Formats: sequence, C-alpha cells, structure tokens
Amino acid sequence: MPDEKNLVEPKTLKGFQDLLPQEYLPRKAVIAVIEGIYEKYGYLPLDTPALEYLETLLGTGGDETNKELFTLETPEGEAVALRYDLTVGFARLLAQYPDRLKAPFRRYASGPVWRVNKPGPGRFRQFTQLDIDAAGSENVAVDAEIIAIMCEILDTLGVENYEVYVNTRLLMDSLLEGCGIAEEAVQKHVLRVVDKLAKVGLENVRLELGPGRVDESGDPIPGVGLTPETVQKILDFIAVQADTRAGVVDTLRGVLPPGEAANAALHELEELAEDLAALGLPERHVRFVPSLARGLDYYTGPVFEAVLTDAPEFGSVMGGGRYNQLVSRFLDQNIPATGMAVGLDRLTSALTHLGLIPKPKSTVQVLVVTMGKVPRSETLKVAAELRAAGLRTEAYFGRKMSLKKQLSHADQNEIPVAVILGEDELARGEVSVKDLWAGKKEREDIADHAEYKRAGRVSQVTVARQAMIDTVRSVLEQS
Amino acid sequence: MPDEKNLVEPKTLKGFQDLLPQEYLPRKAVIAVIEGIYEKYGYLPLDTPALEYLETLLGTGGDETNKELFTLETPEGEAVALRYDLTVGFARLLAQYPDRLKAPFRRYASGPVWRVNKPGPGRFRQFTQLDIDAAGSENVAVDAEIIAIMCEILDTLGVENYEVYVNTRLLMDSLLEGCGIAEEAVQKHVLRVVDKLAKVGLENVRLELGPGRVDESGDPIPGVGLTPETVQKILDFIAVQADTRAGVVDTLRGVLPPGEAANAALHELEELAEDLAALGLPERHVRFVPSLARGLDYYTGPVFEAVLTDAPEFGSVMGGGRYNQLVSRFLDQNIPATGMAVGLDRLTSALTHLGLIPKPKSTVQVLVVTMGKVPRSETLKVAAELRAAGLRTEAYFGRKMSLKKQLSHADQNEIPVAVILGEDELARGEVSVKDLWAGKKEREDIADHAEYKRAGRVSQVTVARQAMIDTVRSVLEQS
Repeated sequence: MPDEKNLVEPKTLKGFQDLLPQEYLPRKAVIAVIEGIYEKYGYLPLDTPALEYLETLLGTGGDETNKELFTLETPEGEAVALRYDLTVGFARLLAQYPDRLKAPFRRYASGPVWRVNKPGPGRFRQFTQLDIDAAGSENVAVDAEIIAIMCEILDTLGVENYEVYVNTRLLMDSLLEGCGIAEEAVQKHVLRVVDKLAKVGLENVRLELGPGRVDESGDPIPGVGLTPETVQKILDFIAVQADTRAGVVDTLRGVLPPGEAANAALHELEELAEDLAALGLPERHVRFVPSLARGLDYYTGPVFEAVLTDAPEFGSVMGGGRYNQLVSRFLDQNIPATGMAVGLDRLTSALTHLGLIPKPKSTVQVLVVTMGKVPRSETLKVAAELRAAGLRTEAYFGRKMSLKKQLSHADQNEIPVAVILGEDELARGEVSVKDLWAGKKEREDIADHAEYKRAGRVSQVTVARQAMIDTVRSVLEQS
Repeated sequence: MPDEKNLVEPKTLKGFQDLLPQEYLPRKAVIAVIEGIYEKYGYLPLDTPALEYLETLLGTGGDETNKELFTLETPEGEAVALRYDLTVGFARLLAQYPDRLKAPFRRYASGPVWRVNKPGPGRFRQFTQLDIDAAGSENVAVDAEIIAIMCEILDTLGVENYEVYVNTRLLMDSLLEGCGIAEEAVQKHVLRVVDKLAKVGLENVRLELGPGRVDESGDPIPGVGLTPETVQKILDFIAVQADTRAGVVDTLRGVLPPGEAANAALHELEELAEDLAALGLPERHVRFVPSLARGLDYYTGPVFEAVLTDAPEFGSVMGGGRYNQLVSRFLDQNIPATGMAVGLDRLTSALTHLGLIPKPKSTVQVLVVTMGKVPRSETLKVAAELRAAGLRTEAYFGRKMSLKKQLSHADQNEIPVAVILGEDELARGEVSVKDLWAGKKEREDIADHAEYKRAGRVSQVTVARQAMIDTVRSVLEQS
C-alpha cells in the first residue's frame, strides 16, 4: 500500500460530476416521470453505445459540434468519439437495421453524452439526455405531439411558469432567400446572431448583423456586414410578436418577403397552430418565436425549446426539431424524422433552484441495530425476516457499535424505523421498534409532544418477536 | 446531402452493441428486478462519471486491467480513461467526500464500463455492470448478505440451477506462505493458474504449476516451475471438496500448512459458514471452492462469483469480493469495503439461452388509425383522450396511410388494440375498437375460433365515442 507521499488525490474531472444519493434519488424520480410520459405517447426504449465512429458523427451537428467531440482511438487504430447526442446514433440505427426498425418508428433513449465545452453552472462535459425521436413521417402532427410531451413533462413536474418556443427552419430559409443571402457561411452566421435575440436584445442583434459591436468586456464581436436595409428586414421579422400563435402567423405574412418558400413556411406554421390547438396546449405555454434558430445544423423544419420563465438563467431545459435529411447521410433513401431531448442536468438544476425537487426520502425503511452481546446471526435473521415481508432493510454492521452511533446512522440516512435487538429482550423473545421520525420530531419540536402522546404515538415499543413486522408496518404507515 | 458515393456506412464499433426494443425491454425488466433487490438490502443509488483520471484507475485492478483501459486526453491535456468498473470510482468517492459518505455506507450503481478486450459471444468492450458496495465494516456478515443478494437475484429471475462459489483470499495467502512462495509475480502466476481449475482440469493445473504444457492449439504455456512437492501441496488444497460448507472447512484444516495465516483464513471461512446458514442459503446453491481466486488485484478477503450451471459457457454472471485496502490508495486512512457486480450482458445472454427471458410485450397499448378523410386534429384529440385515461397510445402518422399498412404497424410492434377512426363513423359520433391479438389468434389458429365466439369475443366493435375508453379497457383486460 502507498505511504502518505504516494497517495493518489481523489478528484473528479473538470466538467464532470459525482451524484451522491441526495442528488441521485430525486434525479431518478424525474427520469421515471419523463420516461413514463414517453411511453404514454407510444415511444419504445432502445440503447446505442457511448462510442461511435468519428465518421458517423463528424459534420452532423456543424463545425461547433465537431470541435466539441471527445475523440480517441480503438486498439485497431480506428478514429472514434464519445457521442455528443443521442440523435445521430438513432439516425445510424434507422439506416443500419431497415428490416427491424420499420417506419413509422418511435423510440426513446436515455444516457450520458459528452461535449468538450467550457464548464459552468449547470453546464457539464458529461451530461444526461432523455431523448425521443419519431421516424418515418413528415406530418407536423408528430412535432405537435412532441411539443405536447414537453408541456406534459413540465406540468407533471409541477412547473407553473414555462414557455415552449416554436419556430420552423423553413421560415428562416425563406427569409434568407428573400434577403438574397445565399452563401452558406453567411446564412449560418445570421442564424447564430438571430438566435441570440433573447440574450442580447434587438439593438445588439442589429449591430451584429451589420458592422459588429464591442461587448461588455471590451472584446470586439465582428458583424455579418449586411446593408442597413437587409438588417431592417430581418429585424422586422424577428421582432414579430402577437398574443396568439395564429396572430404571429398573420403578422409574419405581412413582413416576410413573398415567394414559394414563404408560403411553404407559413403553411407549416398554420398546420402546427391547428395541431397545437387540437391538443389543447395553452397560448401562454406554447409560443411561436420567429427568432428561434437552435444551434445544430441538422434541423430542417419545426424547432422547439422550453425555458422555465422563473429560472431563465438555466437556459433551455429541453429542445429539438425536425431533421428530415440526417438519415440520408447513411442511406440512399430519405427517412424523415423529428425529435426532442431533455437536458436532465439543467432541468434538475432549475427544478432544485425553484424548490420543486422534494427532499429525497431514503429508500431504506428499517435499520436493524443491536445492544449488548447479540450474535451476528440473529441480526442477519431479523433483517432477512423483514425483507421477506417486503421491507427495505439495512442490517447495521459498522465498526463502532454503540447504540448512539447506530441510531445516528439511521438519522443521517433518513431511515424512519429502527428495530433494536437487545441481549435481554432476545432472551425473552422480544424486540424493540423505534419510530425515529417521531423521536426526532419530539426533540425538534416540544410543542408537538403533547399531540403525539394524544395520538397514541410513542417513539419506542417493545413487542414479541412475532409482532415485529406488524409493528414496523404500522409505524411506517404513520410516518 | 451526400450522393451515393459519399454515404457514410452505418456501423457499430467492434465489441459494442445496439440494443433494439426487443432486446432492451426485457433488459430493463431485469435491471428493475436487480435494483429492487439492492434497495431491499439497504443500498442507496449514486452515480459517478464515465471518465476518471488515468492515475485513479492505473494499478487498481492489476497489469491485465491496465492494458484494458480505453485512454484519451482532456482538452487540457490530462491523461484520462473510461472506467473499467464501478468499484474504483466508489473507492474514490469514499476518500473524496468523507463528510457526506459516513461509514458504514452502502451504495448501488448501474452503468456502462469499458475494457479493451477480444470481443466474443457475450463478451463486449462496452458492457453494463450493476454494482453494490458496502464500506466501513470488516464484518463478514456483510459479505454473507451480498451472497444472499446474488441468490435472491437468480431465484427471482427464475433460475433453478446455479452455484455461487465462495472463497477467501486469506486462504490463498496462507497457502502461498505455507509453501514459501514469497515473490509477488510468482504468487500472481500461481493464482492465475489455480483460478483456471474448473476450465482446464486438475492435471493441466499440475503441469502449469510445474514445467508448463502445450495447449490444444499446439501453443506452449509456460509453467510456474514449482517443485513437484509444492505442486502437490497446492493440488491437495484446491482439490478439496465436501458436501457442505462446514465440511470444506474441516477438510481444509487437514491439508493447509498450519500457522497464523491458516488460522485467520479458516476462522473467516467458519464465520462465513455460520452467517450463510443463518441466512438460510442452501448448500446446493452456495459452495466453498478453495480454487476460486478471481482476477482483480484489489481483493483482500472473501471472494464470490455465480455461475448458471445449465449455461456454464457464459462464465460467471456476477462476482465480487472484499477489498479492504483500495480506499487507502486515496486516503491516509483505511476504509474496509466489499462489493459485487452483476455483468448484465452475460446474465441476459445466459437467461435468453435458458429461455428465461419472456418475449417482450410492447409498452404501447393502443394505436389510433384512420380510414378515409379524417382530419389530423381528430386523430390527435382521440389519442390525447386515450392518454388522459392513462392508456399508452401511439397516433399513426406514417407516410403510407392504407388501413392494411396501419394495422400491420400494430402487428409488427405487438400493439394489442387499434382504435379506428372512419370518416362516416366519426360523422355519426362513433369509433371502432379492434382487438388485434384476437384477430391474429383467429387467423393463426382456426380451431380456436369457435372458442373465441363462445367466449363472446369479437375482434372488432363499433361503439359510441363516449364508450371508447371503456371498450379499449375491456379488450386490454381480456388480452
């Protein structure tokens, strides 16, 4: 064993996180809510590996994503990378297993993804996505149902104030076409600037579309260099607001340069508006926002993202869109698809901030402790008996065996009941059952003491061994 | 979009696997069983990242494990690797969060681990482990409970014939000491050879401990080079068998070179035998096997592994042991610990082989399909209504909308009920509910037809829209 000098420092990688039970228990509860809703909408679970061939991933998300890949080599010298999302792997599957995954096909997937980024609050290099994707339909009704899922998740988690922003890439395309912006690099630059509207405001967007500006830290931000007339056309477009989704569509009709692309875009938004209405999604929760672009290159139609309006600093907690061309990267055939991912780390951070994550209860219900000389085998038997009755039970086997130490273990771990095995009691065929929460409450809140007594609750009773299970159950029911 | 020549071939990395719903659904069921049992024994869930500093992992599992690491570099140029198990990360946590993880502490963790190996049947480079570890107790009662967990998992999964092999490293240590084998490299070589007993047989072990041998393929296997007397001592020891665990201990007492180390080893086995008896674990399921060594370097006490005796070709499906020194790699203090991991991929492969994995039912209960000109919004509303009633429902929005095509989608996905929206029926305020499994059964098995009729089952009924939910529910109850 290493001496002190040789100790390895225990530390977590920058941008990575350890999730101890206190964080992980509520996280599991959130995952269960989300996966339950995915299943309710007909999505089936599947799983793809963490590593993909570099070639599979490169270029799918755009230059930004390429730079964010964690790359490595297989023992055979092949270039591979950790997946940066769950969508590209799904597109690969559709092309790879045409006989098994027949369109239309809906799947959900959950797991970690990795991106090389600058870590910050709620921003990690390994983070968990809970993904749904539906392949084989161009129908925007599928997108509308995905937006309904986003709302149902947030409703179920108890979020009152949230907004799902919806737009379509077709709208952006028609605007760029109408403004005569044909060069791909310039198009992407415009989208990036426009997408920042909510963050930097209209006047800064105006400067960034034109000559550029200097940010708060004094750094220059180069502009796209568009003419003032073109900039104004774009600003008129992205500034469009209205009380209703149909109202946004009407207003857009007035400001969008007319043409076939504009008609297609407006038609798609109209259909979406109809479907969202059919699903009964409130105007206050689902809004059409013409400036929404979203980062990834692979989107081709509707895009959407959700923000908790009482915690906007966490950014979008879920988002996605339609990607009708991604599968044709792998297959000489087009399979339209659309999907959405929940960013679990951001979502749980935001929920915690809003106080919507309840203090986790321990999953352990009973701790078996001992007093005096009690044979090990007796502890094991009692614990086994409790478990056989379906009670989640820990048998205490620490190095320090004072009763105080044993009970403080239950305290620290929020275990509600202790079964105490005492040398003398065992000889009489008895055990003690201690209601730890009642005991704690008594200590914390003397005023309540009388009430507990009135309710007939005592924090500890000694009962015949045969009555143990029933006694534990009745304490658990009261707590 | 790429033309045909530029297509990226959709493929999975060698040694990695895609799990489609048919494989993934039963896998999720197995995970739920195992995690439920872990919780029943008082283990709490937590999660550590996939990547660890190389320094954290190196040397923990021995030379073999070092060679099996998938290594890479962070953007900051630090050497890191994908975790090869979940135990080392847990040991790191214990050292890193002494204030939050107070001993005794039990945790479970589930997730992928990665090893560079030669992929084969049931042998992957990314595989999933479901891990429990208990820290802060030297008491072998904790090991005994872990062995009880192994049995309970296999019992619950319906495995009738399995064996959990149990041994202690102390026994090996005392044997090596008694034989005067002090050099670490030689000790490790002996353990590796002895561990192969079940695979290669006693006579081959004799040769490998002595001069070496030539294997079936004609390759030479170098021997340890021990004297025939020493080899015989070791063989006498590992050949020990008896009908009961206590019998093995008694026999060992006769063949083990006497001394303090031997006494400690025998005492540990005796205590284990007592505890396993207290837990009521049958002799036929839990056996003491003196040749069991297990690969990893970090074990210091009891070791255990489980084999499905009707499917021995899958090797051990779960295994673990005590590692009282691993935490002291990170901390100037010793925290004893013991644990076990289920190899989920091997276990599910073996269960599938034994026919113990039921054909997965789809999680989707209802498919909403259309006939004739039905507005999209009507489909959405009906699906939403079914979901609001708690029914897991897919609305069909494929590109091909013939009724036949729609119903065959339900067939392929094992969806039991279709709600059919017809243009005319909708006008009358009606929908049709089709029992797809009854229809399928009728087609498959004419003999059963009469029986179905007698039972009053028809494969399709047309009902008032208000009666839809009840009708769907009653079909689901029958199927």
